[in-house]
Amino acid sequence: MTLASTTPSYDGLTQLFTRLHHLAHVQSIAYWDQAANMPPGGAAARAGALAEVAAISHRLRTDPALRSALEQAQEEALDEHQRANLREMCREWRSANALPEALVQRKQLATARCEHAWRRQRPANDWAGFLDNFREVVSVAREEAQLLSQTTGLAPYDALMDQYEPGMGCAQLDRLFGDLRQWLPGLIRQVREHQARQPALRPVGPFPVAAQRALCERVMRWLGFDFDAGRLDVSTHPFAGGVPEDVRLTTRFSEQEFLTSLYGAIHETGHGRYEQNRPREWLGQPVSLARSMGIHESQSLAFEMQLGHHPGFVARLAPMIAEAFGDQPAFAPDNLLRLINQVEPGYIRVDADELTYPAHVMLRYGIERRLIEREIEPEDIPALWDAGMAELLGLDTRGNFKDGPLQDVHWPEGMFGYFPCYTLGAMYAAQWFAAMRRDVPDLDAQISAGHLAPVADWLRQHIWQPASRWSTDELARRASGEALNPAHFRAHLEARYLA
Amino acid sequence: MTLASTTPSYDGLTQLFTRLHHLAHVQSIAYWDQAANMPPGGAAARAGALAEVAAISHRLRTDPALRSALEQAQEEALDEHQRANLREMCREWRSANALPEALVQRKQLATARCEHAWRRQRPANDWAGFLDNFREVVSVAREEAQLLSQTTGLAPYDALMDQYEPGMGCAQLDRLFGDLRQWLPGLIRQVREHQARQPALRPVGPFPVAAQRALCERVMRWLGFDFDAGRLDVSTHPFAGGVPEDVRLTTRFSEQEFLTSLYGAIHETGHGRYEQNRPREWLGQPVSLARSMGIHESQSLAFEMQLGHHPGFVARLAPMIAEAFGDQPAFAPDNLLRLINQVEPGYIRVDADELTYPAHVMLRYGIERRLIEREIEPEDIPALWDAGMAELLGLDTRGNFKDGPLQDVHWPEGMFGYFPCYTLGAMYAAQWFAAMRRDVPDLDAQISAGHLAPVADWLRQHIWQPASRWSTDELARRASGEALNPAHFRAHLEARYLA
Repeated sequence: MTLASTTPSYDGLTQLFTRLHHLAHVQSIAYWDQAANMPPGGAAARAGALAEVAAISHRLRTDPALRSALEQAQEEALDEHQRANLREMCREWRSANALPEALVQRKQLATARCEHAWRRQRPANDWAGFLDNFREVVSVAREEAQLLSQTTGLAPYDALMDQYEPGMGCAQLDRLFGDLRQWLPGLIRQVREHQARQPALRPVGPFPVAAQRALCERVMRWLGFDFDAGRLDVSTHPFAGGVPEDVRLTTRFSEQEFLTSLYGAIHETGHGRYEQNRPREWLGQPVSLARSMGIHESQSLAFEMQLGHHPGFVARLAPMIAEAFGDQPAFAPDNLLRLINQVEPGYIRVDADELTYPAHVMLRYGIERRLIEREIEPEDIPALWDAGMAELLGLDTRGNFKDGPLQDVHWPEGMFGYFPCYTLGAMYAAQWFAAMRRDVPDLDAQISAGHLAPVADWLRQHIWQPASRWSTDELARRASGEALNPAHFRAHLEARYLA
Repeated sequence: MTLASTTPSYDGLTQLFTRLHHLAHVQSIAYWDQAANMPPGGAAARAGALAEVAAISHRLRTDPALRSALEQAQEEALDEHQRANLREMCREWRSANALPEALVQRKQLATARCEHAWRRQRPANDWAGFLDNFREVVSVAREEAQLLSQTTGLAPYDALMDQYEPGMGCAQLDRLFGDLRQWLPGLIRQVREHQARQPALRPVGPFPVAAQRALCERVMRWLGFDFDAGRLDVSTHPFAGGVPEDVRLTTRFSEQEFLTSLYGAIHETGHGRYEQNRPREWLGQPVSLARSMGIHESQSLAFEMQLGHHPGFVARLAPMIAEAFGDQPAFAPDNLLRLINQVEPGYIRVDADELTYPAHVMLRYGIERRLIEREIEPEDIPALWDAGMAELLGLDTRGNFKDGPLQDVHWPEGMFGYFPCYTLGAMYAAQWFAAMRRDVPDLDAQISAGHLAPVADWLRQHIWQPASRWSTDELARRASGEALNPAHFRAHLEARYLA
């Protein structure tokens, strides 16, 4: 792409980002198709096609003319929203141009090799085999962190995290997690004793997939998901994909059990509504993108945990479940609540409940930060893992690599700095609902009456429409009167699990 | 793209065409998704994204450096297959570079407007409204034909047809169709009298969609469709899409009736197997593309008509149908044969049987050729339509525009020169089976025994693997010992319908 010198630079830049947005559209739909539809024989051809589109996008993003266009645009007369857009353009440009081509290729090679082998190594519990490839992934990530650190002026791990959670750093995270570490293990013990006195009935299956799907779609409609601009499909690993105008959510079904598909769909609907409600007039521009991964997760957790586990919501959900599968004693609202709120330390992060989930995240953060900062080496991970799981969740994980450090795709894929976003999302979600209760005094009564519009209206106004207009701190302050405050998360957990 | 001057030109060209192939992959999957999955709200964003990819492809195809690269490649040492590839590269280059950008845009605008309005005008029987937009479509097509004529040295209509059916021209087509016109109306009358004495029982529905889908997939497997490299889905207008490594076929289901979905799936499987079996080692290169639209249609019709209506095939199909829906008298093989072979002149081309279909094609060819050659104007179409339908099929179509000249999307889309391919495909399919019977003396016994491999083996060797290596005439000669000979089609029809 060439930026004609007669066009004001800012306008030329918006055109470039619109083109990138179009390319991201086909990438996103092709990626969804790969997960939801593609037969195995299509994999190699699809990889080639997506690499081509990625190369074209990369070339557009690294055009040498962009640097001066971005500099000139700073001098042009722009309103506040345009200036915010320019700020986000610069962020994206920095991130696309920070790494030399050779390192990008080395990273691609190392992570592709490591992730590919990991698919066999995980079930085989083969930590030693994994290490062979993982060392190179870590080596590349350290180099990447160093280069990003030079560009941004942030510490190396902070520079990695900044790609997912701009503005968040270890200094703040250590305070947040240090606090959490003080009270979470105790709270988990207390809640487990409390729950042991109130066992829950298990629903009796099978639960036909067609009925589960219909139930998911009914609940998604209730939650305001726009099926004229999106779909629900099936994939092995549920995700929210597609584009704002056509959001593709996936879940997975098992006849033995319906709560996973249902709450998976509710979770993804939170991501989906954020995407469907990003500001239309700015679509294609960086300022319209989701603020951060933590804020995105705050939407899925607002839907899944804050709203989806709300006693008033569950009381309305229970009859829908009974209609879908035929009534049974386990579907009584009180029992359903006990079921979905059950706390039980386990090995696997993605299966964890709301209360033990942060323990998994803190464990990984502690390890990967020290890995990037060269305090430890990959072979030190298992010992740290075992110690952390024992301390935080009281579990013995020795020798169990497959349900331990091999369980997540993030490390084989070289995604360091991402894990904290899950717990930041949980904290933000609690903060949003605390603010919502101040702004909408009868919020709980509305939810209990099945009226979910006040929740969506609040989120639309305070989170979805602003998108990336402000920094995350500013977004939080405008939405809730303060930057991230973990006290809301603690208050939420205590109210929910000790009531 | 820049062709480095140190690379041999031919190698550089193959790299360019591989890149174009990658872009065609994402276009093809996005197009399939649009037809099979996309919710209505996604349409505008998808159009923007696809336009972006099309613009990138167009820029690659019209790079000024290509002309000299193609010229230099002619001087390089190439083997026969590479030389065939270069010939097809030149064809594609000529077609991409023949029209000035302004005309391409005018065409896009005119056809988009005409087709969009046509969607309402057709159900409203609004010929006058259609004419308003269609005049511009014709005007653009005449100009396009003129320019293509200058580039290729062909007559204007021939130059349009050459894009779909290289090597075919009006001189040959007039002979083929002139002959057909002599005997077809008489044969139709004769067959109808013959069939009136053997009425067929109608199957009694409903036919559950899930059972229809399972039956289609069972029959597709029998026909050798590779579900590891393809899928069957649903769309309003069935088509074969996707990419050779991942072929996406669609059909449509109605509970009232199962023969349409089943034979639709069999038809598309013919297209699909051609695509799945184009030469792998040449994928991405023009020489690996399907030879022509007529040859493509010869594969779908080989599967649907030659094989799918074969009495031995139908005898094997009948019990599968009975298993799918429960047995009933109409599913007796003899009755099924009578049902699927029923000849009845009708208004609608896509619903036409094997015998009346060519009448629809000849009618359209006669009209559109004279339109492009400026012998007639768009307002002359209805009178010619009425006369043709009366002569060829004995039907009165006066005033019925919606089931007349408004019925097809080809004209609103400016696709002139395509219609003849349908009947060329029928003729070629008959010729392939005649040759196959010479090469595989027990062919009919094999089919009757349910062994379809000899059919696929023959087609793979003679049609699928050669792809675009030879001209169509040469392909036909190598496959069957002669260029297109319509006597095989006549013999086939007489044997099938008068037996």
